[in-house]
Amino acid sequence: MSFKITILGSGGALPTNKRGPSAQYIDCINRHLLIDCGEGTQTQLRKFGVQFQKISHIFISHLHGDHFFGLPGLLSTMNLLGRNTGLTIYGPENLHALLNDIFSCGGQQLNFNLNFVLLDFTEEKVLFEDKLICITSFPLKHRIPTCGFKIEEKTKEYSINAEATKKLSIPLKDYPKLKRGENIFLENGKQIDFRSCVIEPKNPRSYAYCSDTYPSDKYLNSIQGVDMLYHEATFTEELSDRAKKTLHSTAKKAAEIAQKANVKKLMLGHLSSRYENSEGHLLEATQIFKDTIVAEDGMVIELL
Amino acid sequence: MSFKITILGSGGALPTNKRGPSAQYIDCINRHLLIDCGEGTQTQLRKFGVQFQKISHIFISHLHGDHFFGLPGLLSTMNLLGRNTGLTIYGPENLHALLNDIFSCGGQQLNFNLNFVLLDFTEEKVLFEDKLICITSFPLKHRIPTCGFKIEEKTKEYSINAEATKKLSIPLKDYPKLKRGENIFLENGKQIDFRSCVIEPKNPRSYAYCSDTYPSDKYLNSIQGVDMLYHEATFTEELSDRAKKTLHSTAKKAAEIAQKANVKKLMLGHLSSRYENSEGHLLEATQIFKDTIVAEDGMVIELL
Repeated sequence: MSFKITILGSGGALPTNKRGPSAQYIDCINRHLLIDCGEGTQTQLRKFGVQFQKISHIFISHLHGDHFFGLPGLLSTMNLLGRNTGLTIYGPENLHALLNDIFSCGGQQLNFNLNFVLLDFTEEKVLFEDKLICITSFPLKHRIPTCGFKIEEKTKEYSINAEATKKLSIPLKDYPKLKRGENIFLENGKQIDFRSCVIEPKNPRSYAYCSDTYPSDKYLNSIQGVDMLYHEATFTEELSDRAKKTLHSTAKKAAEIAQKANVKKLMLGHLSSRYENSEGHLLEATQIFKDTIVAEDGMVIELL
Repeated sequence: MSFKITILGSGGALPTNKRGPSAQYIDCINRHLLIDCGEGTQTQLRKFGVQFQKISHIFISHLHGDHFFGLPGLLSTMNLLGRNTGLTIYGPENLHALLNDIFSCGGQQLNFNLNFVLLDFTEEKVLFEDKLICITSFPLKHRIPTCGFKIEEKTKEYSINAEATKKLSIPLKDYPKLKRGENIFLENGKQIDFRSCVIEPKNPRSYAYCSDTYPSDKYLNSIQGVDMLYHEATFTEELSDRAKKTLHSTAKKAAEIAQKANVKKLMLGHLSSRYENSEGHLLEATQIFKDTIVAEDGMVIELL
């Protein structure tokens, strides 16, 4: 049951031939998610071999163009390719009306339902939850209302230790109890400690996405201890004044956030087009937080 | 003084890795024009080396997404790169309000003037004219109001035949008259026929763009005799029913239009993504109109 992140766009506001605007496709235990949808996302999805009709939930962090200008085109293409299963879009208030206007002025009608869910920009909120995963939003600090997102695998059940259950002749009907961590009683009245029959589950995996934001303690709790933190690093420190003015982060500040939040790995993204390569970002960040990578378009990261 | 068309997107409604949605950049005697602006146009402009800040006039044929979803992103990028010279956009009625809504919901403001000019979908209209070129729009036949565009070089002035003017000792002050085709009088009273001192100008060049449309006689007059006709050919004849239903053209029908309008060359475009290559289109069209090519992304056509 994989948890994979495909980087569709790792660039900032100005797309380049190497870095498209923000978009990430996430396959979390067969839940197919898209976070942000900059211009050209549909082309990137095709290029990187994503079966995009499977996407069921789209999360738009905020309404700067480099985070949603690809949404009308993607929805249009899904429609033309015959989609009829609904799609849930989580986003800011005006997005729904805007999409309606865009399609209606072209006389186009989508043949599938769009379910819009408004983001809350004041506090952390659970957006989606099922038996295996949970997705939350949390406010970031940017020029316009902006949310980050966290995708968490729920605590997994124990696995059955087949050898042990065979030895103890435990009937199949008791397996669900063991998996949930409950002791059982055999027909002869003997109590069996579930620990003797199960294998410990792996730790549940988690991923957080913070783009765009000025670094701030206010979202530290929301991203605490995640396996992978994607954090924007539009600039490096020599442009920290510009970062402050535009409410963006530098690579150094992103690394400080990763350190404070005690995350396991950091991935930098949303790099300004002024940087020819990411060496400066990496150097700056790794001095503070060693386990750092820089997102590249087409990169696939699997959380293990 | 060149007249060049750069194909930025030659595909239909569904972009593929080979064919982007409709967009063409035209450099007509240093007038820098963009016709249609499908998603990803800004990336194509970069890819094909166009200095897009020079573009001064944008023409949007109609409001189906594959013809304008790239416009917000392009304007946004022009703005971020510091543009402060105005831009004129010719398009359907709702486009202006839509762009305003898109930018205002993201709190973005353009630092250059957008001058909007409404297209007339009932008859041919001159949209732009200066001393060297003239651009007209004319109604096409599609599911929503749609215009085609024609870009024409004006009749050129004569060039001075230096050898002849030297031989006849014609003073410089009389050159403008000769260029305009006026006879002159020398100081000794002798009349000089301008034809003896000038070189005939080349024929003025012309280009017409018809996408999207069902083939119709109603726009034949507007495209009569152009040097190059770009005509959509979404389908080939085996899908003529679908062409009729969706008000698109087949390659054969586009060729018939080219023949009837007595154009010099035909370029097919807006090919449906269902076709793996353009061989079928070319075969079908050339049986009727020999001088046919198929547009490809990145192709540059110079009118001589």
